[in-house]
Amino acid sequence: MTMVPKGYRFAVAAAGFKKADRNDLGLILSIGPAVAAGVFTTNRFQAAPVLVCKAQLAESPVARAIVVNSGQANACTGEEGLANCRVTQEIIARAARVQPEEVLPASTGVIGAQLKMDLWEPAALKLAGCLGRATPMDVAKAMMTTDSFPKLVAKSVQLSGGEVRVLGMCKGAGMICPTMATMLGFVICDVDIEPKTWREMLTFCADRSFNALTVDGDTSTNDTVIALANGASRVRADSKADLELLRQCMLEVCQELSYRIVQDAEGGTKVAHITVSGAKSHPQAEAAARAIGNSPLVKTALFGCDPNWGRIVAALGRSGAEFEPDDVVLKIGGILVFEKGQPAPEDLDALLAPVMRHQDVKIELTIGPGRGTFTLLASDLTKRYVEINADYRT
Amino acid sequence: MTMVPKGYRFAVAAAGFKKADRNDLGLILSIGPAVAAGVFTTNRFQAAPVLVCKAQLAESPVARAIVVNSGQANACTGEEGLANCRVTQEIIARAARVQPEEVLPASTGVIGAQLKMDLWEPAALKLAGCLGRATPMDVAKAMMTTDSFPKLVAKSVQLSGGEVRVLGMCKGAGMICPTMATMLGFVICDVDIEPKTWREMLTFCADRSFNALTVDGDTSTNDTVIALANGASRVRADSKADLELLRQCMLEVCQELSYRIVQDAEGGTKVAHITVSGAKSHPQAEAAARAIGNSPLVKTALFGCDPNWGRIVAALGRSGAEFEPDDVVLKIGGILVFEKGQPAPEDLDALLAPVMRHQDVKIELTIGPGRGTFTLLASDLTKRYVEINADYRT
Repeated sequence: MTMVPKGYRFAVAAAGFKKADRNDLGLILSIGPAVAAGVFTTNRFQAAPVLVCKAQLAESPVARAIVVNSGQANACTGEEGLANCRVTQEIIARAARVQPEEVLPASTGVIGAQLKMDLWEPAALKLAGCLGRATPMDVAKAMMTTDSFPKLVAKSVQLSGGEVRVLGMCKGAGMICPTMATMLGFVICDVDIEPKTWREMLTFCADRSFNALTVDGDTSTNDTVIALANGASRVRADSKADLELLRQCMLEVCQELSYRIVQDAEGGTKVAHITVSGAKSHPQAEAAARAIGNSPLVKTALFGCDPNWGRIVAALGRSGAEFEPDDVVLKIGGILVFEKGQPAPEDLDALLAPVMRHQDVKIELTIGPGRGTFTLLASDLTKRYVEINADYRT
Repeated sequence: MTMVPKGYRFAVAAAGFKKADRNDLGLILSIGPAVAAGVFTTNRFQAAPVLVCKAQLAESPVARAIVVNSGQANACTGEEGLANCRVTQEIIARAARVQPEEVLPASTGVIGAQLKMDLWEPAALKLAGCLGRATPMDVAKAMMTTDSFPKLVAKSVQLSGGEVRVLGMCKGAGMICPTMATMLGFVICDVDIEPKTWREMLTFCADRSFNALTVDGDTSTNDTVIALANGASRVRADSKADLELLRQCMLEVCQELSYRIVQDAEGGTKVAHITVSGAKSHPQAEAAARAIGNSPLVKTALFGCDPNWGRIVAALGRSGAEFEPDDVVLKIGGILVFEKGQPAPEDLDALLAPVMRHQDVKIELTIGPGRGTFTLLASDLTKRYVEINADYRT
């Protein structure tokens, strides 16, 4: 894989957090100090690793390692969970020969249980032994919980000073599956870049990818995206043109990862691409897109391949976005469905039947003359989703 | 039925709006002018009868009749729909021998199609012939769409001047079922009361009943509650004590009707009573209760009889309500489940198993020292719900 950013090593280990003999611990190590940025869940309940990462990054935008475990989320674990998280930083730091504060921790799995601390020392030894012999895909697999496939995307981009590589991996299927806590994403790059610029770039990309999808509208206690840039390519990005090229590359990586999360939605069979434009503001466009993408009625209609414009329009109507009903134009799969407060006169069911059978369904709404726009990826709501989430523990 | 308020007559007819030989038109007629109040959907798309009722009540708080049809919602029908609605007022007014502006129309059924106007004249004749020979239950049945049972509640209350009767009926199961548009409620009473007081009383009661339930979080284009008070009991309510008694009686009627809507939720097997208290304000308590009651993960857990506190807590955490995580206390069925940021140490699955098997499940959260409180009734999310809403048109 020539796309792997330079100057990173990977390791995985089977610690036994949930099942024996399954890799459930992953390490991404930068050979030198890397510029680090993170975006985290806005949930009021934040898992211990989220609190630790946020504190760490507030103190210094430099890190050497990301350590991720699946099986245990270390969320809703109080002071003890926080202390445990700091101990795991120390254990991993010793194994990776870095400083504890250079290790950014992330956890996913069952919430409410304390970390099984006795498993960490032996697992760290295994990690150290494996270092350099694992691939990014191994790490992407180790962080899976209910995911049905690993999610990894790598791209490169030619900047004025040379080529740099961006690699992203993530896990996530339902937002909080059983008592799982959930979306984790890591982006690594070998560009040389200013911390402030890197942070802004991550936020820009996350807002248009990981923050622009919905499976069930729930956000978890552990959601984390961390981005590292270690400069190992010796290519510096600071001109406006280079930064735009890099940002576009990072955005593509993040958006492809997001698409795979929705594609892998629990029980999901469809990916709806919902674009609202012409709103008074971006937040209003987002509110409208989310009302539609989270509506159980819209989602069940998608599952049933039913071009049910009435549900889309009604969800828009209660979204809180301001608009004149007569201004609304709705297209599904490019076909005009609703306009001037009324459905189009054609036989919509017949026209739309082939569109609705695709995995990807485009839903486009123009709601007025404004400039606000937002695109959301949404999964459908299926019997299998209910089964997975109702029957998990029984 | 001694509970039927004095001075009202009822009629039903089979107009053929959807199926032949099924009563789909209902009339509630007050013998004299009645004080009238209404609360309506806040959806930006409002059905023609909603617009007509709102305009009517803004002009005069007095009415004689409520006419309700099922099968056709007259929503998303533009200017033609509005004109049709006014014609139906005239047709019904002639049949009932009142003025058109004294008729408050309500519709439920498929949206996007124009009313079948040719069916209204013959149906109005049938209504006139039936007047006085139908019961409130007949009207409650005529307004059903996907409801599996009619919803009717009647009570009486002793005021200082004598007894008055409050009768309520409603329809509703999913918020917008297929392209159905949906919650309708009528409350009739024989008290003598000021229009302003009556309006305030209806708003108070609706906020604590019809506006405090969720099936799928969707609101429809047709949601309407109309309340009539015709004074036929010759009992005047104007003292503070009498008004409180009457309000309590009306609230009980509305809350029992709301409970039945959630009980009849599409595919639903459970009614969750979610109370959030200790919030900074009532709206914050409401936001928290709604985030929990609308969470697909909480709803599927309810269906699976899974006491999944993690999902409840995570939904609270993203609700936007302000609180300190350590202040949150969660009880399910009266049993302490979560406190000080961590789950209770007991074997919660065992303790809660019997609680979760009941149809009614109490979920109580205290989130701080504030005075904000809200109780929401929520249904669960089941495979049957998905079936009903995905497979309807295929």
